[in-house]
Amino acid sequence: MDSEEFRRQGHMIIDFIADYYRDVEKYPVLSQVEPGYLRKRLPESAPYNPEPIETILQDVQQHIVPGITHWQSPYYFAYFPSSGSIAGFLGEMLSSGFNVVGFNWMSSPAATELENIVMDWLGEMLKLPKSFLFSGTGGGVIQGTTCEAILCTLAAARDQILNEIGRENISRLVVYGSDQTHSALQKAAQIAGIDPKNFRAIKTTKSSSFTLTPESLQAAIDLDIQAGLIPLFLCATVGTTAITTVDPLGPLCDIAKRYSIWVHVDAAYAGSACICPEFRHFIDGIEGADSFSLNAHKWFFTTLDCCCLWVKNPNALIKALSTNPEFLRNKASDSKQVVDYKDWQITLSRRFRALKLWLVLRSFGVANLRNFLRSHVRMAQLFQELVGGDNRFEIVAPRNFAVVCFRVLPSASGLGDGKANEGANELNRKLLESINASGQLYVSHGMVAGIYFIRFAVGATLTEDRHVIAAWKVVQEKLDGILATS
Amino acid sequence: MDSEEFRRQGHMIIDFIADYYRDVEKYPVLSQVEPGYLRKRLPESAPYNPEPIETILQDVQQHIVPGITHWQSPYYFAYFPSSGSIAGFLGEMLSSGFNVVGFNWMSSPAATELENIVMDWLGEMLKLPKSFLFSGTGGGVIQGTTCEAILCTLAAARDQILNEIGRENISRLVVYGSDQTHSALQKAAQIAGIDPKNFRAIKTTKSSSFTLTPESLQAAIDLDIQAGLIPLFLCATVGTTAITTVDPLGPLCDIAKRYSIWVHVDAAYAGSACICPEFRHFIDGIEGADSFSLNAHKWFFTTLDCCCLWVKNPNALIKALSTNPEFLRNKASDSKQVVDYKDWQITLSRRFRALKLWLVLRSFGVANLRNFLRSHVRMAQLFQELVGGDNRFEIVAPRNFAVVCFRVLPSASGLGDGKANEGANELNRKLLESINASGQLYVSHGMVAGIYFIRFAVGATLTEDRHVIAAWKVVQEKLDGILATS
Repeated sequence: MDSEEFRRQGHMIIDFIADYYRDVEKYPVLSQVEPGYLRKRLPESAPYNPEPIETILQDVQQHIVPGITHWQSPYYFAYFPSSGSIAGFLGEMLSSGFNVVGFNWMSSPAATELENIVMDWLGEMLKLPKSFLFSGTGGGVIQGTTCEAILCTLAAARDQILNEIGRENISRLVVYGSDQTHSALQKAAQIAGIDPKNFRAIKTTKSSSFTLTPESLQAAIDLDIQAGLIPLFLCATVGTTAITTVDPLGPLCDIAKRYSIWVHVDAAYAGSACICPEFRHFIDGIEGADSFSLNAHKWFFTTLDCCCLWVKNPNALIKALSTNPEFLRNKASDSKQVVDYKDWQITLSRRFRALKLWLVLRSFGVANLRNFLRSHVRMAQLFQELVGGDNRFEIVAPRNFAVVCFRVLPSASGLGDGKANEGANELNRKLLESINASGQLYVSHGMVAGIYFIRFAVGATLTEDRHVIAAWKVVQEKLDGILATS
Repeated sequence: MDSEEFRRQGHMIIDFIADYYRDVEKYPVLSQVEPGYLRKRLPESAPYNPEPIETILQDVQQHIVPGITHWQSPYYFAYFPSSGSIAGFLGEMLSSGFNVVGFNWMSSPAATELENIVMDWLGEMLKLPKSFLFSGTGGGVIQGTTCEAILCTLAAARDQILNEIGRENISRLVVYGSDQTHSALQKAAQIAGIDPKNFRAIKTTKSSSFTLTPESLQAAIDLDIQAGLIPLFLCATVGTTAITTVDPLGPLCDIAKRYSIWVHVDAAYAGSACICPEFRHFIDGIEGADSFSLNAHKWFFTTLDCCCLWVKNPNALIKALSTNPEFLRNKASDSKQVVDYKDWQITLSRRFRALKLWLVLRSFGVANLRNFLRSHVRMAQLFQELVGGDNRFEIVAPRNFAVVCFRVLPSASGLGDGKANEGANELNRKLLESINASGQLYVSHGMVAGIYFIRFAVGATLTEDRHVIAAWKVVQEKLDGILATS
């Protein structure tokens, strides 16, 4: 790791990546390779002798780039964004450069303390109650992803109650979400040993905009209690995966409180927007929850991975997740004056992720972060208007943030009333495939109440109005093509 | 994310990190800051307006670097190494640059396929049986850390058996390790909902070099079965945390097989060395295990995090960890022709970690990787010889890899026979503190069978003979100082 050789190769890669960003919009957004393509191109075993970085970079360009789905392309509109930024990238570089293993305070005090500080900064930007902040009575931690955040809080909730009523009752614990809740909840429940038959994906309906209603939660709880089960954990969502709907936090928390149910609020995607005063109302009621998380790697420009989790009661986490092996004992930890993040998460080793969040907050500043998020919302509005201008399409669900859910109308399928919706689903599926196969843009789909639709999520850092307009043209052309041949 | 601005700032950070590596040996290895130091130096909230990267980098130098414990310093000998390399760093940069979210094949085919390929490459370098490789009947996956690897395999084992005998039996499942097993096992068991009273840290003794003996495992199993419990999972270790001892894999697997116990082999630290023919024997018997993991970020130069996990039966993992939400459905997954790594791990989102492992394998080549690992072992031998040349010290446990466990002899404490060991513990504790407080090197400690000792782990990428020799001088001087004043 000679520093001059590091410098030489490092500069080379910076140029490589800068060129990649310059050219990224020319690549097919969705990779067009076939399964197994890479094994045909690479040797069967690792080389015995070293290879120069120049050769390796050529291979990256020739063999890896074609197999990349370009999440950084300005024409990337699928799922939720994976938003990079210069600041996020530089923060990740610094983190890799220092390469510290920040399991406890002592292993690198800056890693822990900067995380304490930036989690408070971001918490204040979101106007989280003091009960979630270190400057109050709670605290924040950076996890990898929402699934980890949910798993940790679920384990905390589970052990809190099992330590009271006895471990043998684990099979009686019930976890609640809705049929719109992210699959991360189901997965976390599986891993935490919750009996799969005690996992409730409560049905939502169009009449309540596919939110989890207090009434349906109450009904589910009542049934479970009658059956001798124990309500444990509720995951409410701000910005659901399919249509970015928002569960009513206040009323849900009120019910949960009556049964001592731990409420986690998953705002993985939409939480970022809540730093803007005009969106803050979406997390009204958060004061009743026990934990709250958002993925800064989705729509807050930190690069993957950076899931920000705040909890009211860090001790519950620590009780469920701490181990205190001899080799990690040290004076600072014994003094209880410091945070040891190893006890706030699944893993022992942890990267210095706070750097990238710090760099993003400072490089943008609060004002520009708000404006950047608003620019994505504005572009989504633009797209929505374009859809509205073509009477073959409809908007499937109200747009809350920067995701537009739309579809070709059933009438366009040419099928009779009885089969119109099925026909529309098939048509929209075809349209999605045709759009993505073009490589010109990448969109994904959703399905709610039997309706298949296309999701157009604005949020890639490089996206500008012209990309949105061009994307819409492709959608129209592809539909023209399908209708012409059918 | 303008590409020219990216280039400008990227080059600036490369120079910053290159300078850091050039100067790293001048910094106190263990950070000397006091708890709370950083909050005093940083503003109370995020800036409203953007700040230039130049200002931020100044702050990194002035406020962050003093709070860093320098894991990349050539004088870093604590815990296990967190080994960086130019290749590992560049791979991480490329991964951040592409910033893809590789949850399934389609989301970036190259991310999945390169991981398949490099895990087979590395598996072959380790001479793992074909039953662990994609080219055979198993497969490998890159996780973040060992705790995740254990949690995933434990969940797989748990669900395999509970699906047969009923979920209500979860409280009867027993997990086995030894008192030398890493705390990751205990933590994984806690998270997976195993009753804490069914966690067995089987006692080891000096007579069997603190390995888990087949006899003691058998005895523990017998007791549990008599008590109506169900043996589930065994974690055997190659290179334990305290003294890098090696459990006898073959005999342990033989016993486990009789009871259908899932055996995971944790070779987090020492697994890397097994690419050298002379160390391969340490994983003899691996063919009887169900899963095997090593941390390439420890002693294989990939930077944190990169835990390589191989399993014989990927379907068991997939059954425990898969969810199939509508929004991720796609033709490639439906065809079953591809690997969707989301079902092999806890999280949905995943970074393109295979890039850094690929770059390390190619930039070094097998021959140089072996030689580099051997150079660390040789430096540990050198240190051991230095310790042996000073009759105030003793080696506490046989050295298997590049970790030397030593202590000041009880006789040096000046206390009588009855209190000699206690006195030695106190003396060695003082010595450790004195060494680390000097900032000249960083070592950590262990405790086995009541004996407190100092661990000297060679493995930082920049360490050379001269650093080892200088480190030993500091140890001697610090002991001189303590003995002179007592």
